[in-house]
Amino acid sequence: MIDRRDVEAAWARVRPHVRRTPVIEISGGVFGSATPLALKLESLQLSGSFKGRGAFHKILVSEVPAAGVIAASGGNHGAAVAYAARALGHRAEIFVPTIASPAKVARLEHYGATVHQVGAVYAEARAASETRAAETGALMVHAYEDPQVFAGAGSAALEFVEQARFDTLLVAVGGGGLIAGCAAAIGTATKIVAVETEGTATLYEARRAGRPVEVAISGIAADSLGASRIGAPNFEIAQQRVAVSILVADTAVRAAQRALWDELRVIAEPAGATGLAALLCGAYVPTPGERVATLICGANTDPASVV
Amino acid sequence: MIDRRDVEAAWARVRPHVRRTPVIEISGGVFGSATPLALKLESLQLSGSFKGRGAFHKILVSEVPAAGVIAASGGNHGAAVAYAARALGHRAEIFVPTIASPAKVARLEHYGATVHQVGAVYAEARAASETRAAETGALMVHAYEDPQVFAGAGSAALEFVEQARFDTLLVAVGGGGLIAGCAAAIGTATKIVAVETEGTATLYEARRAGRPVEVAISGIAADSLGASRIGAPNFEIAQQRVAVSILVADTAVRAAQRALWDELRVIAEPAGATGLAALLCGAYVPTPGERVATLICGANTDPASVV
Repeated sequence: MIDRRDVEAAWARVRPHVRRTPVIEISGGVFGSATPLALKLESLQLSGSFKGRGAFHKILVSEVPAAGVIAASGGNHGAAVAYAARALGHRAEIFVPTIASPAKVARLEHYGATVHQVGAVYAEARAASETRAAETGALMVHAYEDPQVFAGAGSAALEFVEQARFDTLLVAVGGGGLIAGCAAAIGTATKIVAVETEGTATLYEARRAGRPVEVAISGIAADSLGASRIGAPNFEIAQQRVAVSILVADTAVRAAQRALWDELRVIAEPAGATGLAALLCGAYVPTPGERVATLICGANTDPASVV
Repeated sequence: MIDRRDVEAAWARVRPHVRRTPVIEISGGVFGSATPLALKLESLQLSGSFKGRGAFHKILVSEVPAAGVIAASGGNHGAAVAYAARALGHRAEIFVPTIASPAKVARLEHYGATVHQVGAVYAEARAASETRAAETGALMVHAYEDPQVFAGAGSAALEFVEQARFDTLLVAVGGGGLIAGCAAAIGTATKIVAVETEGTATLYEARRAGRPVEVAISGIAADSLGASRIGAPNFEIAQQRVAVSILVADTAVRAAQRALWDELRVIAEPAGATGLAALLCGAYVPTPGERVATLICGANTDPASVV
């Protein structure tokens, strides 16, 4: 299991390559919530989501063959791998499920990747990518189930605690890459709250079962939180360092996206607003004086969809 | 003429009421420009633009009668006055030209203001607001031609120099409130570059004439940079402390808006992208090593318009 020092090492490697994303602190009363809130706009990261951190880290610590890199992704991880591969001088092939938004596919191609749309859900795209990697010898960059990837993602949490003071961090969970990295980085000193939509409840169901299990994926966040099973090492970290696992309705996520636009002029994709949704809909109720923070983890969506 | 210490005093007054907006530093190579760039996301300010700073300051330093406050505005100043008036417990009436976007009018009403749509251009809305203020005795909060207002706006520049190091600040100009405040605050130590669209060239034409003159208003930025004459005290400061006055085409502004979304997931209204446009289109060419910054000064637009 990786720990804070592994994330610190990852941060040192990726720091010259990724953005230091800004933080805004919001006073109580905004968003109809009395709780002051720190928001890290990781949505402004290279490639439009936190995934850039993990992709750069995996490629930087690997020997990349001439065949380049391969990834399977609901979109954001693929964009991050394509972006990082190009920046570091490698070829990239990206496998996405057919549910991936046209905007995300166009972005992959804009970054110079070869895109394969395969399967209705992430798991099918992933299987196809593994077959292809076995054929070509390319480096597989897994979206979340790789400590090198989520150690990179966790650098966002180390950066965040440098920028703002908070007791509790609300983190959206898909395959568990972001939350594993954040929990490894700061989970001993900071309360980590996992938030998933009802249609993408990989951690919630794994906790009920005591182990990673397949879940049916649906709803507003399916294209970015839509891994059908939480990663095994991710779950191990989450079991030790994630205090609470919460579900929110799709309507709460949409309301949080709208609130981010109306009150802050920030665009977030559904996954990017999922942490905030838990606070705004009352699924997570802070204690008086508790300092709450969340990562706005991505913005790869049609901005017209949030207004 | 106000100076840095006046802006510092204004900042001390408004600081408890407004947001400290985030800054992001972008490495060279992004936006197709070799120049590293610091961007202050003043678009995340209360009410969606920098205007909140000036509105709060004017109201805080004034005795406000029971009739409340009145403002005339292409939209952003009106929204800021409505927001600040409500926050400070006063009534607000806002006069806007008919060109103001439906989104801006809806925002004013959402903030509890009474909205009057009068006249095709800003000057007509302003005249109507002055008539109304004479009738009711309400406090007129001018959009830019008031040192109390632009001293408040200038607090953005003081905050920015705390957050990032730069040699040159690109600032969009409409009536001249933001640039007067910024120039008063930091214009002796920092090169201030004024940027206007070809259809809203109040400073550019005033410089040619040697005094504020009426200009015909048109184009993409008409609803927020569309003052038809630069303010007199604003021009006085600009003549002393603004190094260069540049015009950019509407197409360059739209390209800058798109680049902000594509590369950074930031939404800016046309005025908010006008400073950046000067860099991206080559109208402003930094010297090697020159550290350039710009204020993304507002985002009160339909986000679908930028993609």
